[in-house]
Amino acid sequence: MDNRITALFQIQYPIIQGGMVWCSGWRLASAVSNAGGLGLIGAGSMHPDTLREHIRKCRQACGELPFGVNVPLLYPEIETIMQIVVEEGVKIIFTSAGNPKTWTSRLKADGMTVVHVVSSSKFAVKCEEAGVDAIVAEGFEAGGHNGREETTTLVLIPQVRKSVSIPLIAAGGIATGRAIASVMALGAEGVQVGSRFALTAESSASDSFKQYCLQAQEGDTVLTLKKLAPTRLLKNDFYKCVALLEDSGADVESFRELLGKGRAKKGIFEGELNEGELEIGQVVSLIDDIPSAAQVIHRLVEEYNACREEFVNSLRFREFPAG
Amino acid sequence: MDNRITALFQIQYPIIQGGMVWCSGWRLASAVSNAGGLGLIGAGSMHPDTLREHIRKCRQACGELPFGVNVPLLYPEIETIMQIVVEEGVKIIFTSAGNPKTWTSRLKADGMTVVHVVSSSKFAVKCEEAGVDAIVAEGFEAGGHNGREETTTLVLIPQVRKSVSIPLIAAGGIATGRAIASVMALGAEGVQVGSRFALTAESSASDSFKQYCLQAQEGDTVLTLKKLAPTRLLKNDFYKCVALLEDSGADVESFRELLGKGRAKKGIFEGELNEGELEIGQVVSLIDDIPSAAQVIHRLVEEYNACREEFVNSLRFREFPAG
Repeated sequence: MDNRITALFQIQYPIIQGGMVWCSGWRLASAVSNAGGLGLIGAGSMHPDTLREHIRKCRQACGELPFGVNVPLLYPEIETIMQIVVEEGVKIIFTSAGNPKTWTSRLKADGMTVVHVVSSSKFAVKCEEAGVDAIVAEGFEAGGHNGREETTTLVLIPQVRKSVSIPLIAAGGIATGRAIASVMALGAEGVQVGSRFALTAESSASDSFKQYCLQAQEGDTVLTLKKLAPTRLLKNDFYKCVALLEDSGADVESFRELLGKGRAKKGIFEGELNEGELEIGQVVSLIDDIPSAAQVIHRLVEEYNACREEFVNSLRFREFPAG
Repeated sequence: MDNRITALFQIQYPIIQGGMVWCSGWRLASAVSNAGGLGLIGAGSMHPDTLREHIRKCRQACGELPFGVNVPLLYPEIETIMQIVVEEGVKIIFTSAGNPKTWTSRLKADGMTVVHVVSSSKFAVKCEEAGVDAIVAEGFEAGGHNGREETTTLVLIPQVRKSVSIPLIAAGGIATGRAIASVMALGAEGVQVGSRFALTAESSASDSFKQYCLQAQEGDTVLTLKKLAPTRLLKNDFYKCVALLEDSGADVESFRELLGKGRAKKGIFEGELNEGELEIGQVVSLIDDIPSAAQVIHRLVEEYNACREEFVNSLRFREFPAG
C-alpha cells in the first residue's frame, strides 16, 4: 500500500497517531513512528520548554524516521511554540482549533509539511485555499474537543472528499483495521487514531485513567460543554455537575467557573477520576487492553488486510437490469 | 452477492428501505421491492384502515415479490395494527421503539419474519434472546427518532457485531454505495436506507419538503427534543423555538406543549416548512436530486461494485515485520 499519505510523510502505513493532551509525548510518538506509522507530539498540554525537550527526545528515539507535532492554534503562547517548532527543525506539523490561514504559509516557508484538522467541509475548503498539504477530517465520535455541527465520520468523510482534492485523513471512531477499510471506502487515504493509542503502554496518561477507560461501555462518553467548546468525555462525577448545569439552562460563565483550570490534566495525567475531565472517544467501548503502540499498528495492519481480503473474495452485486 | 440478508428476505440486493412516517406508503415500498430491494410500509403515520389499504395496494403492485411493514411498538392502537398485519398475511415485519419480547414470539407463531430496530448492543442482545430473525442497528446520524446513547454507525456496527450472531443490517448515514461498502467492512450484512428513499419520486412526502431537503447543507440537521424522545430534524422556525426552550432549561411539559400533535405530518406531508417537524437524516446534505426509487437502487449497486473493485485493485498493507 503506497498512496498520497504514505508518500507525503514517507511512512510505511497511512496510520497517524493523533496528538492528544496528556497522552502523546515523545514516548508514544516515537513508538508509533518506529512501528511504521506517523507519531505526533501533542503540544496542547505542554509548556514551551517541555515541548522542546519532547521534540529532542523524539528525534533521538526516531533516528531518521519522521514524526510530527500537533499544535492547537488557540494556544496562548502560540508564537513561542511556533518558534520552538521551527528552531528544532520539526518537519511535520498538524494544526487544529483555529484559522489555517494564519500560520500555513509561514510554516510552509520554513519547509514544513502542514496538515490542519477540521470537522466540516467548509473548513476543509479554507484549508485547501490556505495551501495545507493534507486535511484531517474528524467526526462527532472523536474524543476531546469536537465540532459544533456534530457531523459523524460516516457522513463527514464523503462530504469533505467531494469538497477538496488534497489528501484526506479520517479521524473519529477508528480503532480497528476494519474501521480503516470502512473510511477508505468513503474516500479517505489515511487515518488518524486517537483513543486506541491513548490506551497503550507508551501513552503518558495515568494508569488509573487507562484502567477506567477499559471498563467503559457503549454510551459512557458524551459530547458536552457545548456552551463553551463541545468536548467528548467519559461520564463521571465532574460530568454529573456539568449535566446538572446543562439541564437547568445555566449561562456560559457558570460552565467556565465549574470547569476551572487544569481539569483535563487532573483526569488524564493525574488520574483523579471523579474530579477530572476524562477526554476520550466514543470508540473506547471497543477497547479492552493496553498493548504497546507497535502491537496496535500490527493489529491494524492485519485487520485491514483481512478485511480487504473479504472484499476480494466477495461477490459483486448482480448488475441492475437495463431498461 | 447472496448473503444471509438476501436469503432471509428473498431479495436481489441487501438493501432495505426504512419505514418512515409520511414518506413510505405502498408506492415507495412497492417501487423498492420491484427494483430488487425490500420495501417497507411505514405504519407509524397510518390509521389502521389506511394501513390495510396500503398493504393491499402494495401486494397488488409487488405480485410475488416480498415487502414488509414497519410498526413502532409504542403505537397507541398496537393491537389493532398487529391484527391487520396478521389478517392481511404480511410476511415480513420490522418492529421498533419498544421491547422486542412483547411481540416477537406471537408474530413468529403467525409465520412472520421479524426484525427489530435498535440503537445499542444491549438491546441487540435482547432482540436475539427474543428470537428475532435479524437486527437493524441504527446510528446517531439517522433521521427521526434516535437512541439516547448517541452512538454513531461507525462505532455501533462493530459493537453490535461483537454482541450477537444473527444477521445484522446497518442504518444511519447510508445514502451511497460507498457507504454500503463502508458498513459491510464493519460487519453489517445489509443496509437500511431512509433519507435517500424519502427523497424519491415515489415518496409520499410533499414536494416542498423534498425541495427544502435538497438545499440542506452540512450541519443543518440536529438531534434535539432530548427531554422527550431524541429526534433528528432539519433546523427551521419550529426548531428555533425548541432550541430556545433547551437553552433555558425548560421542563418536559414545556416541550410536550410546544410539540403538540401532528407536527411531523405538518412538516413532511403537508409541507409547512416553518411550523412542521422536518425529520431527516444527517446524510441529507449529500443528497441533491429526486430520482425514482429504482434509480436509487441502480446507483447504490453500481457505486458498491465500483468501491469493491477499488479494494480488489488496491494493495495490501505490507506485512508488519516479525519480532
